[in-house]
Amino acid sequence: MEQSVDHVDSNEHRVGRARNRGRAARQASRMDGAGQNAHLQAPFISRNIPTYDLLDEENLIKIEKAADTILAEIGIEFREDPETVELFRKAGGQVTDISAEAWNIKFEPGMIRELLKTAPERFTQHARNPARSVEIGGDAMVFAPAYGSPFVMDMDKGRRYGTLDDFENFVKLAQSSPWLHHSGGTICEPTDIPVNKRHLDMVYAHIRYSDRPFLGSITAPERAVDSIEMCRILFGSEFVDQNCVIMGNFNSTSPLVWDGISTQGIRAYAAAGQGSIHLPFLLGGAVCPVTMPGAVAQGLAESMVGCALTQLARPGAPAILASFLSSMSLRSGSPTFGTPEPALGSLVMGQLARRLKLPLRCAGNFATSKLPDGQAMVQAMMSMMSAVQGGVNYVLHSAGFLDGLLSMSYEKFVMDTDLCGALHAYLKGLEINDDTLGLSSLREGGPGEHMFGTAHTLSHYETAYWDTELNDDQPFESWSEQGGDDAMIRANRRWKKILADYQAPHLAEDRDEALLDFMNRRKTEMKDAWY
Amino acid sequence: MEQSVDHVDSNEHRVGRARNRGRAARQASRMDGAGQNAHLQAPFISRNIPTYDLLDEENLIKIEKAADTILAEIGIEFREDPETVELFRKAGGQVTDISAEAWNIKFEPGMIRELLKTAPERFTQHARNPARSVEIGGDAMVFAPAYGSPFVMDMDKGRRYGTLDDFENFVKLAQSSPWLHHSGGTICEPTDIPVNKRHLDMVYAHIRYSDRPFLGSITAPERAVDSIEMCRILFGSEFVDQNCVIMGNFNSTSPLVWDGISTQGIRAYAAAGQGSIHLPFLLGGAVCPVTMPGAVAQGLAESMVGCALTQLARPGAPAILASFLSSMSLRSGSPTFGTPEPALGSLVMGQLARRLKLPLRCAGNFATSKLPDGQAMVQAMMSMMSAVQGGVNYVLHSAGFLDGLLSMSYEKFVMDTDLCGALHAYLKGLEINDDTLGLSSLREGGPGEHMFGTAHTLSHYETAYWDTELNDDQPFESWSEQGGDDAMIRANRRWKKILADYQAPHLAEDRDEALLDFMNRRKTEMKDAWY
Repeated sequence: MEQSVDHVDSNEHRVGRARNRGRAARQASRMDGAGQNAHLQAPFISRNIPTYDLLDEENLIKIEKAADTILAEIGIEFREDPETVELFRKAGGQVTDISAEAWNIKFEPGMIRELLKTAPERFTQHARNPARSVEIGGDAMVFAPAYGSPFVMDMDKGRRYGTLDDFENFVKLAQSSPWLHHSGGTICEPTDIPVNKRHLDMVYAHIRYSDRPFLGSITAPERAVDSIEMCRILFGSEFVDQNCVIMGNFNSTSPLVWDGISTQGIRAYAAAGQGSIHLPFLLGGAVCPVTMPGAVAQGLAESMVGCALTQLARPGAPAILASFLSSMSLRSGSPTFGTPEPALGSLVMGQLARRLKLPLRCAGNFATSKLPDGQAMVQAMMSMMSAVQGGVNYVLHSAGFLDGLLSMSYEKFVMDTDLCGALHAYLKGLEINDDTLGLSSLREGGPGEHMFGTAHTLSHYETAYWDTELNDDQPFESWSEQGGDDAMIRANRRWKKILADYQAPHLAEDRDEALLDFMNRRKTEMKDAWY
Repeated sequence: MEQSVDHVDSNEHRVGRARNRGRAARQASRMDGAGQNAHLQAPFISRNIPTYDLLDEENLIKIEKAADTILAEIGIEFREDPETVELFRKAGGQVTDISAEAWNIKFEPGMIRELLKTAPERFTQHARNPARSVEIGGDAMVFAPAYGSPFVMDMDKGRRYGTLDDFENFVKLAQSSPWLHHSGGTICEPTDIPVNKRHLDMVYAHIRYSDRPFLGSITAPERAVDSIEMCRILFGSEFVDQNCVIMGNFNSTSPLVWDGISTQGIRAYAAAGQGSIHLPFLLGGAVCPVTMPGAVAQGLAESMVGCALTQLARPGAPAILASFLSSMSLRSGSPTFGTPEPALGSLVMGQLARRLKLPLRCAGNFATSKLPDGQAMVQAMMSMMSAVQGGVNYVLHSAGFLDGLLSMSYEKFVMDTDLCGALHAYLKGLEINDDTLGLSSLREGGPGEHMFGTAHTLSHYETAYWDTELNDDQPFESWSEQGGDDAMIRANRRWKKILADYQAPHLAEDRDEALLDFMNRRKTEMKDAWY
């Protein structure tokens, strides 16, 4: 028998005895319950560990040159937005007409990078509760719920289309977790609301049920405008003009196309001084080269162009470089998430964004599993570790992502937020000093003597280790006596309890009424549309 | 709706169509089945990505100085092995008698490091099949099954004490996976065999059912000698004297004690020219300081002393620095595994081992979960990623670890080996060149055109992405029609199929008979003992 097993057994008993006496036990009893970790809570993470730099400069330059070559020799296709084409033409882009509604623009090497110089390296997105405002860029890191699933799932009712009720539930679950920092955007599609109106309900829910920052609509330019208008009601027009209070998450149409809906939306957000995320969704071998370096280079090219457009609309507007890297199953032809090659690509994206001095959105708790099981969490960790180690600044898909992004899972949401909490401890790193080296603890007893009761242990006991809110770390016997539940079942109980305990943050009544008035007026002005 | 969802939907259809035609589909059909990844298979991993270096040199030196201070001012206690004490005394250690059977030895700063200079930075452990020999140290990385659980678990029969049948099953499961490189040691305790005889059955099972390298017994000096003697029968005495063919995994008794059973065993392995691992099992706040830097410093001190003893027994004997870092649940007092602080500590151990020019054993697929569920895999990933990113050379607990090391899980074993496979792809890193940057793929179609059929895609299709043997990446509907099983259930089916398909590697009949003769003779010489 490995001797460590003896240690496990005997240590359990020794620790158990220690807890029944002394100051440490009393201090523990004063805590609010599992998973609080008060010392780690913050409106956003300040990364205190180095980034994991995969490539050397020579190889990074090769990727940057490939992106420049793509932009100079193949070019980007723009569709149905002549104003954007005109902005790029004036800035030096070489425009070729493809049709009446499509243009190819080529950019001399360095031109796009030059345009990006006015974009901020780091900026603040304000929350209606100023204590919840976040910073995006530099060593700041912000976790937001997953985004964009048409379906929701839970262990009781299985998979079904999302509704506004589900949407509100997820806003509440996010607001209740100290390990997310941002309310996200389309956490799930509220498919019971007409497509042309649901953005109003979503923005309202973010404002009403959360006091954190959030994302607005991008599915049509007028919906982007509505989203920003609701922020003007909430924050005041002048504040909104001078500060970022909302952002839009825009997808390119890979390979190498920016459609007019997106570019109009990007311009709307930027012109209002608001933030935007410029995301190529890169499925290798389908819409980008099947080899990861090619996917990264193409994504860099596409995202840089989106970011550059913001600076043409309003220099200094916040813009976030982004990349969503995925792979493909050789056998089924399906997209796969949480696989090793995209994880490596995300680390490289981190390096490229820092060289470009732009904030980065990349990776998250991805999974193709259809249940919140071991597969889901292996895939989630593979992707999420690359985000935090790569120094990603805004992680949109931090919680709930299942079924290849087709479903938001209630159970995985709380499993992911617990993991996000653990990552707070991870990103804090290790401080090395005489106190943390703890020789006093060893000296107090000496060889062979346990350290449960040393002054050093007692003074660090409460903050030395991350305290999970969900994992069961009890001995087998206790776990078994309590029902022997797996993580899925515990997560199912947990999200229900969180929703039952949820209390909405205060919202001034006049603002609430003004928002409802606006929403009702806009809804009355439009006929229901389902596209 | 986030546009990426459209991409997921539409890409699935597009990829599906692409698979039904063309060379790529025909190539795929020639493959042996899921999870083969022939291009990634190797007798051991050669790490091709940089290590993740958490601390700068200044902080590493602080830890090294703390370890030196521990050795110089507090010292290590040795028990019941006067020969070891005498070896250290002659080498310059300052010995103080504690009792007739216990001594404290203090070491001047630098003395232990000086002794370690004759230990190899990298060595070969030979397998009976020369194609399966592994290298340990440098950029080489070796995965072995978990070690030391008294219990085994599967989804059919739950938790029960391990037997020799279970032990043999796990040797066979390990041998069947291309993603492990080493047969390990006490994969589970064969509790149906007397304690004083089971080492013979375990070593025989490793030899008979695997053709990979393995670990021998450490629970008593005569059992270590038996283990080595069986290798002499297998490899020939002369070969064994000149080459490492077996290793022992020795635990210190933290804090700061090496007991006589361990030091005698260490000397037996080293004197025979065989390898040894020197492992402090560090439960923070119990047997080491509760703060992670203190745990690392103490572990370094203890492990260095164990390694140094090998060089006194036989200069040049292979020695592996090691550290098993764990944390404690504030609430229950139980040890916890797969938590963030030990993951950081493992990264630091990697840095310290490289500075010391010694191979490192550290971390693995740890978990305190009692089931192979989402919790198990979050914890496993947190720990295992630190091993591979920290450049650990020998990962003993790579597969099956559950229930805080008290149970070997059949299902988690195959979940872990699939993860180990993914890590082969991860550790290969990204090669950046004109071919992998894939501009030809983009040029073949241009903006807006998919890349399923480009020459570049077809030439990289089979090796671009890791192919899982266990995860289900199909669309929800296909998964659901096939039963909607979670990862646990699929893993349950998989290990049964692997065992059903298992075929023992060839072993020359005369060697087999000689081994059985030796084993039977030794068993006859001893009365059964259960301690």
